[in-house]
Amino acid sequence: MAHRVQELLVQVVLAIFHKATFGKPSCQFQLRASDVPAEAEGGNGFWLSWRLAVEANNMSAWRTVPPQCQRHVESYMTGGQYEQDLKLIVDQVTAYANGITVSNDGMDAWILDIDDTIISNMLYYKGKRYGCDPFDAAGFKAWAARGECPAIPAVLGLFKKLVDDGFKVILLTGRDPETLGPATFNNLRNQGFHGYERLIMKTQAYKGQRAITYKSDIRRQLVEEGYRIWGNVGDQWSDLQGQFVGKRTFKIPNPMYFVR
Amino acid sequence: MAHRVQELLVQVVLAIFHKATFGKPSCQFQLRASDVPAEAEGGNGFWLSWRLAVEANNMSAWRTVPPQCQRHVESYMTGGQYEQDLKLIVDQVTAYANGITVSNDGMDAWILDIDDTIISNMLYYKGKRYGCDPFDAAGFKAWAARGECPAIPAVLGLFKKLVDDGFKVILLTGRDPETLGPATFNNLRNQGFHGYERLIMKTQAYKGQRAITYKSDIRRQLVEEGYRIWGNVGDQWSDLQGQFVGKRTFKIPNPMYFVR
Repeated sequence: MAHRVQELLVQVVLAIFHKATFGKPSCQFQLRASDVPAEAEGGNGFWLSWRLAVEANNMSAWRTVPPQCQRHVESYMTGGQYEQDLKLIVDQVTAYANGITVSNDGMDAWILDIDDTIISNMLYYKGKRYGCDPFDAAGFKAWAARGECPAIPAVLGLFKKLVDDGFKVILLTGRDPETLGPATFNNLRNQGFHGYERLIMKTQAYKGQRAITYKSDIRRQLVEEGYRIWGNVGDQWSDLQGQFVGKRTFKIPNPMYFVR
Repeated sequence: MAHRVQELLVQVVLAIFHKATFGKPSCQFQLRASDVPAEAEGGNGFWLSWRLAVEANNMSAWRTVPPQCQRHVESYMTGGQYEQDLKLIVDQVTAYANGITVSNDGMDAWILDIDDTIISNMLYYKGKRYGCDPFDAAGFKAWAARGECPAIPAVLGLFKKLVDDGFKVILLTGRDPETLGPATFNNLRNQGFHGYERLIMKTQAYKGQRAITYKSDIRRQLVEEGYRIWGNVGDQWSDLQGQFVGKRTFKIPNPMYFVR
């Protein structure tokens, strides 16, 4: 709080200085970098464009974060904006879910992805320059096998709400059950994910298939079982596209990597 | 709670200071919490979250821009970031298009939306507080009937490239041909859009249908005619979802309004 007051005081001093210097109480009065048109939005214009293109699915199959974005990705993931973005998305999901009347037949379902949707790999990616380094399959598997991915708090809250509301929450992941099955089960439990309906992992039958194909096929089976997929939440567009995607899809931000 | 009271007190003091200094309370000169760097990315955190949610299709059927975003939308649309975002998207489209071998059968197609995809209504929306005011059907129709929407330069360049490359560019719009047909034709011509294959407008047969239904049906007909839809570019998710959307879709930013 003291820090905050200090910063506000600095701004007041700047404001007085500005008025003394420039006189005109213009509406554009703040001395913010973002007011400089050439350096739109705080001088991080390219980063903002790149992130927007990623999240709006305008980029495809990008391999690594552009090096000039590294400090911006780090700042985004650790400086509060990622959480703020998550909060607004979870607010949207919650408002939508609140409008659904859950039936008694137990077939009202939500699909949630796992990695960087409900639990976070940010600590791992910190060691990979937040995605500026290329994907390292062995390194990632070793990390995931530790079963120590922290829950993403806003999404854990959403998960609990959906379960409490009576939805069947189905966790659908590209993780391999043979090598990561127990670690994943344990990780979900130790992070507070209880009461989900199923955890569906990518078995050998789907080996080599792209996520969009594998996940579409699983969702088809669920729909054939009679599930109504009300919502589908994932950090990758391959979670949210293809067939039987659900009545609404929600994209969780992830500027660190892309899964085909 | 104490923290919150403290913050409110600071704001009250600042408000008094502000009023004493500038008199007019309507100006944007507040030392807002969002100006504190702790609120990541230049102090416009909510706006960034809101824009991201809109562009990633996490918001649905939103009616107006939240009032606290008004100056940010204006700054975004007029301060350079919108153009920077467009440039990166057009770069992506161009790279993708360059990888396609256009055949001689004349059936390699692209679908482009019109309003705020290839020509801009920003000047009209400026008078509607950049989308903070609700949609005004009559006002918009009167504006469009003038036929004075400027081309969006980056997308005009893309349009010309696609035509030059031998693609059949099909313009697909929700505009009504009876009231806006001539104005639209003239507007496209006066802004340099020459050589497109077709301009498809929303005839009476589709009246009352949502954009996603109408546009899906048109694309189905095009596919049945034999067109291969390589790409689909629009500023609304209703341009890019539904059936026969094309091999790749590209979302042009539009934080000013939402079309169902």
